[in-house]
Amino acid sequence: MHKYSQGCKAGVAGVSGYSGRELLRILARHPGVEAMEIPRESEAGAAVKEHTLDIVFLATPHEVSLEAAPAALAAGARVIDLSGAFRLKHAAHYDRWYKMRHTRPDLLAEAVYGMPELDRTGIAAARLVANPGCYPTSVILALAPLLASQLVDGDAGIVCDSKSGVSGAGHKPAAGTHFSAVQENFRAYGILEHRHVPEMVQALGVPFGDFQFTAHLLPVDRGILSTIYVKLARSASLEEIHAIYTARYPDGGFVRIRRQAPDLHGVQRTNYCDIHVTLSSDSRRAVIVSAIDNLVKGAAGQAVQNMNLMLGFPEDEGLQ
Amino acid sequence: MHKYSQGCKAGVAGVSGYSGRELLRILARHPGVEAMEIPRESEAGAAVKEHTLDIVFLATPHEVSLEAAPAALAAGARVIDLSGAFRLKHAAHYDRWYKMRHTRPDLLAEAVYGMPELDRTGIAAARLVANPGCYPTSVILALAPLLASQLVDGDAGIVCDSKSGVSGAGHKPAAGTHFSAVQENFRAYGILEHRHVPEMVQALGVPFGDFQFTAHLLPVDRGILSTIYVKLARSASLEEIHAIYTARYPDGGFVRIRRQAPDLHGVQRTNYCDIHVTLSSDSRRAVIVSAIDNLVKGAAGQAVQNMNLMLGFPEDEGLQ
Amino acid sequence: MHKYSQGCKAGVAGVSGYSGRELLRILARHPGVEAMEIPRESEAGAAVKEHTLDIVFLATPHEVSLEAAPAALAAGARVIDLSGAFRLKHAAHYDRWYKMRHTRPDLLAEAVYGMPELDRTGIAAARLVANPGCYPTSVILALAPLLASQLVDGDAGIVCDSKSGVSGAGHKPAAGTHFSAVQENFRAYGILEHRHVPEMVQALGVPFGDFQFTAHLLPVDRGILSTIYVKLARSASLEEIHAIYTARYPDGGFVRIRRQAPDLHGVQRTNYCDIHVTLSSDSRRAVIVSAIDNLVKGAAGQAVQNMNLMLGFPEDEGLQ
Amino acid sequence: MHKYSQGCKAGVAGVSGYSGRELLRILARHPGVEAMEIPRESEAGAAVKEHTLDIVFLATPHEVSLEAAPAALAAGARVIDLSGAFRLKHAAHYDRWYKMRHTRPDLLAEAVYGMPELDRTGIAAARLVANPGCYPTSVILALAPLLASQLVDGDAGIVCDSKSGVSGAGHKPAAGTHFSAVQENFRAYGILEHRHVPEMVQALGVPFGDFQFTAHLLPVDRGILSTIYVKLARSASLEEIHAIYTARYPDGGFVRIRRQAPDLHGVQRTNYCDIHVTLSSDSRRAVIVSAIDNLVKGAAGQAVQNMNLMLGFPEDEGLQ
Repeated sequence: MHKYSQGCKAGVAGVSGYSGRELLRILARHPGVEAMEIPRESEAGAAVKEHTLDIVFLATPHEVSLEAAPAALAAGARVIDLSGAFRLKHAAHYDRWYKMRHTRPDLLAEAVYGMPELDRTGIAAARLVANPGCYPTSVILALAPLLASQLVDGDAGIVCDSKSGVSGAGHKPAAGTHFSAVQENFRAYGILEHRHVPEMVQALGVPFGDFQFTAHLLPVDRGILSTIYVKLARSASLEEIHAIYTARYPDGGFVRIRRQAPDLHGVQRTNYCDIHVTLSSDSRRAVIVSAIDNLVKGAAGQAVQNMNLMLGFPEDEGLQ
Repeated sequence: MHKYSQGCKAGVAGVSGYSGRELLRILARHPGVEAMEIPRESEAGAAVKEHTLDIVFLATPHEVSLEAAPAALAAGARVIDLSGAFRLKHAAHYDRWYKMRHTRPDLLAEAVYGMPELDRTGIAAARLVANPGCYPTSVILALAPLLASQLVDGDAGIVCDSKSGVSGAGHKPAAGTHFSAVQENFRAYGILEHRHVPEMVQALGVPFGDFQFTAHLLPVDRGILSTIYVKLARSASLEEIHAIYTARYPDGGFVRIRRQAPDLHGVQRTNYCDIHVTLSSDSRRAVIVSAIDNLVKGAAGQAVQNMNLMLGFPEDEGLQ
Repeated sequence: MHKYSQGCKAGVAGVSGYSGRELLRILARHPGVEAMEIPRESEAGAAVKEHTLDIVFLATPHEVSLEAAPAALAAGARVIDLSGAFRLKHAAHYDRWYKMRHTRPDLLAEAVYGMPELDRTGIAAARLVANPGCYPTSVILALAPLLASQLVDGDAGIVCDSKSGVSGAGHKPAAGTHFSAVQENFRAYGILEHRHVPEMVQALGVPFGDFQFTAHLLPVDRGILSTIYVKLARSASLEEIHAIYTARYPDGGFVRIRRQAPDLHGVQRTNYCDIHVTLSSDSRRAVIVSAIDNLVKGAAGQAVQNMNLMLGFPEDEGLQ
Repeated sequence: MHKYSQGCKAGVAGVSGYSGRELLRILARHPGVEAMEIPRESEAGAAVKEHTLDIVFLATPHEVSLEAAPAALAAGARVIDLSGAFRLKHAAHYDRWYKMRHTRPDLLAEAVYGMPELDRTGIAAARLVANPGCYPTSVILALAPLLASQLVDGDAGIVCDSKSGVSGAGHKPAAGTHFSAVQENFRAYGILEHRHVPEMVQALGVPFGDFQFTAHLLPVDRGILSTIYVKLARSASLEEIHAIYTARYPDGGFVRIRRQAPDLHGVQRTNYCDIHVTLSSDSRRAVIVSAIDNLVKGAAGQAVQNMNLMLGFPEDEGLQ
């Protein structure tokens, strides 16, 4: 049944970045996969042929992925892209949010959004997986069950206030990531205009105008904590809400429903997403807090989780 | 005209805490006030008589202030209380939020809420000033002008997502403020149930049920940044909104309306409150970000600003 | 040969502290040992009998270990004590350095100092192992090979300037470990008078008067970096010195001789000790830099390494 | 007597760096000096003529200062150079330590090393002041009195173990100053080969071979703490040593002799240098700990202190 479950070969492009390095670290512990670096992203297709790779991870900028993904696919590999290049369904959105003309609407149509807890079947069968962004992972996992339950009053708007560690900004030195600019500081950025917004509203199926997202830069290395505010369509009990969440995220998986507010320490260097819900005293409003490690569940860990689904490994192989 | 403007004598109770120490630091630079410590809070009244103090700052726990304030008032001094003991108008609220039976509803009625930018006249004439909490300062200054303008659609709810440095938790060692618990961490606390909520809804005049506030603990020493989300009753331009804010907060004061999102570095060790407004592309929602130093504008600095109004000094004396 | 190599039972006392928790984490990954908590340290002997424990880890204060170790030994278990209670050979030293009257000179004589790289045979046969202190681990591993080679001019004195993360001070909240006291700060403490000094001079066999040690508190959670200065008895080449170190610490072990100066990131959450040597241009003075994780190689990891030697497991079992 | 004491005009070149910005901040509070920016360092001479500047601060790289200082001097201004361009007396040393051919040995001979506590007279009369490096300031102030007293056994060697905040590395983004590289980390660099070594041995008059200096990078923004180890030529009492220091640094100045070990919090954002001495129990070895703010006493503050001496202001004008 697990036809690929041993001797699989994976290539990783973009190994100079944080996500690429994290991928190599995780894959080194994975018993069923032999991982190799693809040092020159432009030669992803050639690498697939030369080394008969089963799967290619692209931890590359979106402009690079736009070229490398088709090349790797054409050479016969399956592809997990960690950039935003294949996350949005409408090519036109790339003009606005990525300042890039998207040349492969066919692949946008084909790509499967790689949120394992929400679409295991689609991912398992996919040739091209668009690995979710870090902020979207923390927000979508927190909101999806409640939205699916029809409990949310969408007209009242949804507020997502997210805070990320500095590694989310990449390893390239910049004024904004200089230690002296970050230490003992905190700031909001991308207010209402962050590139991850269209990805979130697409995945959640909510109107853009009712969704407010703000990103913030924390003086920590790793982790995202999102605080999400919704109005309920009717009053509900905490037990009912917990039942909704645990139905979607059964015990033993990477999404854990917590009775206490999570923190970053609880998820750093793990593939877990911790979620906690607070109800207002009148049971009409809810605050959902979610926490992930942006480089693991928010990037490399989730990519390996997707790979496990695609290649028939246990979903948590290499991730415990 | 400035009848008290020299030779004033001020006493400070609670000097072992962060706010008390900050008060002494600020007052040491104030040219018109001679400051002295009141080492035993229980003897505030005696200290007023012995040293003929004009004014007493209480940087004490609320239970202590509840006793010390009447004593100092009875001895003839005016009082600025930095605790929550006199901030709420309804004695019954103290049962729920402060787990304390309030014995002086007369003083609750008399006390003036000390937010200088919103009530200079009341403060100048007050005998007892309730100095605002740190979170409320960052939230109320950010919201008051917009609420007064009738531009906010109150029914849609107001979300206040606030993040504070560790000094806000006081200097007493505790598991939650141990370096190893805070470093490289971030967490939410007091979700929907923070003690500062009744203070904010009272000052802003909004219904409790429509107001959602979450506090978070930042791995920084000083500063609060609040990100506030409102729905507008009608579409408005950024220029119109700026005009509303600058009418309330003219140039040259401690509240600065910023064209760029503020950060903590810009306000630390100052009495400034920096405010920035972002409008959604459809002009129907606004995100307001405010930043203060929790120990200065959020506590000791604002207290001295209040003292300046009460004693007839220039409002910024000792605070530049 | 590995007679205990499966089904061993270990007890851990002192699990509320950092070292105890780290021990439980490591032992949970160890394939040959079943670990259990001993919640009440005073019942270590009873726990040994009731659960037929093979080995007991004491992550307890030295006063507690002084009682618990004999009890566990008498009940038939072997003991690894992470406190300082059995590290010094002379009972009289406990009066000065630990302000404690030592009542078991017989156990001081019997205890084996648990630095695996320097005494595998002694540890393997020991009934009672005194697990080294965190600072001593970083200093002794760095100096021992050079001292043994007779290359050090002892008369010139040895300077050890060590810097530790805050977890080394324990998890008990205190003024000195409050986040606001540590963040953006750095200080020296225990100058020339640190409790770890007699342990280091004893293990290294150098005169107390020629050994200068200063501890410092870093604003980090985990890690110790020691910078050590010696004068050489004769000029030597870097190659000769490297040969001395690699003879003592062959490739593949937990002590790694580095060509570049180590940092804390390279050793955190590992059992490694990274060591780097710099020679002065006249080849007469050397600076040795060593880095460890104070809770792993400096405490719990080293304790498990000792256990592996004592019970016949591979030395790195559970530690990779 | 204070012939320049009002209406002085100062120019600052290099205002994009940390030291330049700090200079502008300090000079803005100085009542006797009007400060202006010199935006293009190459036009320092022209700026002096056009604005009739009395004094020019060069907060520029050493290669730039080597050109700008002569130009400003030729145009009639006095110069305080914060780079290393004029600190060393021997032009040949610039080849080795600064990888730069020094073209103005005449100015090296003329330049006065600007350590106010050690040479007020020389500085007051100087046309060109070489403002000391940050590490040298912390080390020289700590050692100079003891060396002058003949109490130090120089043959035994002097060890200076210094730790600096990240702002000392400049504001230019680099891999080594990225938040994620510094946070929760610590490392040594420039071991025995730091560029500041020749400056220190020159100022202290000690042989290069007997002086061991190591720099370290702290995860803090501001501050240097140096731990210095010396052997005494004879045994001495702490009182005798304190008398030596307080004779050189009387009460009320910027160098404070402390009875307790200093920390960075005590000196940040001030021009103070705090010094503490510990004697070994046999009174034959001493450990000296000094703390400064690297951008104030270690750069801009000391530069203004030098300016005050040169222009006849009170030495602490603008620095309290």
